[in-house]
Amino acid sequence: MMRRILLRVAYDGTEYCGFQRQTNGLSVQQVLEEALSAWLKEDIRIMGASRTDAGVHALANAAAFDTETLIPGGKYAFGLNTSLPPDIRITGSVEVPADFHPRFTKTVKTYVYRIYNSTFENPLNRRYCLHCYGPLDLAAMQKAAAYLEGEHDFKGFASAGYSSKTTVRTLYEVSLERGEDDVISLKLTGNGFLYNMVRIIAGTLLEIGRGELPPEQVLSVLETGDRSLAGATAPAHGLTLMKISFPELEKLNIFLDKPEKTR
Amino acid sequence: MMRRILLRVAYDGTEYCGFQRQTNGLSVQQVLEEALSAWLKEDIRIMGASRTDAGVHALANAAAFDTETLIPGGKYAFGLNTSLPPDIRITGSVEVPADFHPRFTKTVKTYVYRIYNSTFENPLNRRYCLHCYGPLDLAAMQKAAAYLEGEHDFKGFASAGYSSKTTVRTLYEVSLERGEDDVISLKLTGNGFLYNMVRIIAGTLLEIGRGELPPEQVLSVLETGDRSLAGATAPAHGLTLMKISFPELEKLNIFLDKPEKTR
Repeated sequence: MMRRILLRVAYDGTEYCGFQRQTNGLSVQQVLEEALSAWLKEDIRIMGASRTDAGVHALANAAAFDTETLIPGGKYAFGLNTSLPPDIRITGSVEVPADFHPRFTKTVKTYVYRIYNSTFENPLNRRYCLHCYGPLDLAAMQKAAAYLEGEHDFKGFASAGYSSKTTVRTLYEVSLERGEDDVISLKLTGNGFLYNMVRIIAGTLLEIGRGELPPEQVLSVLETGDRSLAGATAPAHGLTLMKISFPELEKLNIFLDKPEKTR
Repeated sequence: MMRRILLRVAYDGTEYCGFQRQTNGLSVQQVLEEALSAWLKEDIRIMGASRTDAGVHALANAAAFDTETLIPGGKYAFGLNTSLPPDIRITGSVEVPADFHPRFTKTVKTYVYRIYNSTFENPLNRRYCLHCYGPLDLAAMQKAAAYLEGEHDFKGFASAGYSSKTTVRTLYEVSLERGEDDVISLKLTGNGFLYNMVRIIAGTLLEIGRGELPPEQVLSVLETGDRSLAGATAPAHGLTLMKISFPELEKLNIFLDKPEKTR
């Protein structure tokens, strides 16, 4: 009998051309499919929850696949991690209904965009933070970030090429804080994100932080839907997908629990 | 005229066989000497402040060298960084007295040993934290850490092969805290560290955290100087040299300032 398994997948995106299979490089999807197929001795195809771009990281992306094996739903992390590279880790697994598709279901996602703001270079965070040398006006950035909360048409914060029917999304929470390590973390939680939306928001807030745009520019972008009024798309490596919740699964009391010990 | 320049050096130690030149691999020293020699067109040899082991990281190691160039003391970061790999960065430079040797002078150093304590794997911190799956008794570890503060004979916390005349050192501050990211940071500031001292302290505190040793074991190691009573040497990749101060230079009002803008 065919069963559908949902995996939680964490990865350092530095070495990959993105989550989704591409002809021009190695994707997280390809690595996962090859490891699963070799282990389960079936031809496994996975359905990703979020098709993160090249260089973007994830602590909790999700991917589903169908299998005829009888391995219990919670037992996929250990078997798979032994044959995955150290920059891709499975951190949980669970059996889900046969018609569950992680991309075509309601989700609540949390992204963090990290800006290392210091005149010092720091080789220890270079893979996960955008380095910004000059001073940034944190209060102006926070003011701008607050305008983004709630339900808006985010068309002006999307790159061309999206296929969504509507560009209206809800951001439940937007926060921007500076840590002791000089890392400014922009955190967004919402019910959906348009193509490049977090990176364009980050790029716009950066220009506001540098004083190149006023905080109210965010309102103009929301009102007009004009991409050209927003800032540049910030580089991929500052972005990490932190969390995905699936309300449909939670209603069924299905959770991606902590994995069994893997050492 | 020969002048002595002191560099502050930050590096991700993952890919190196340590700071010091070795015959068995690429060292930070070799990369620095080759970059300096090529740039300044002199045969440059550097004197490191701390000979960190293979895999150990640094935000602020220091290295001195002599040169006949007339480049001002504060201007070495930019020129050097353009020819260094991204995992080695110069974050400051200053001219120092011709007889100043960063290893044979009084120093105050701060190290951090990071333990990621979670049942989840996290590929984003795997290079900089030791991953510890099981529960750790933080209070017991903190109690043990407090015993280390002050002046003690740390012989029992040193690997064989040290060449120091005395094994008495002073730790001005020892702290151990758990962050929201499940990373436990053990921070030690002192006037000197014996070979592998921080890693043996970290390994001992880990065994105390797991309940395999009582917090008072630290007192026994200090009293007897018996290495076999301490825990195993913790892996290198959790260790980062955070800071070095040179009181002798500070008396002369010489500081490694922030570098000029490098972008």
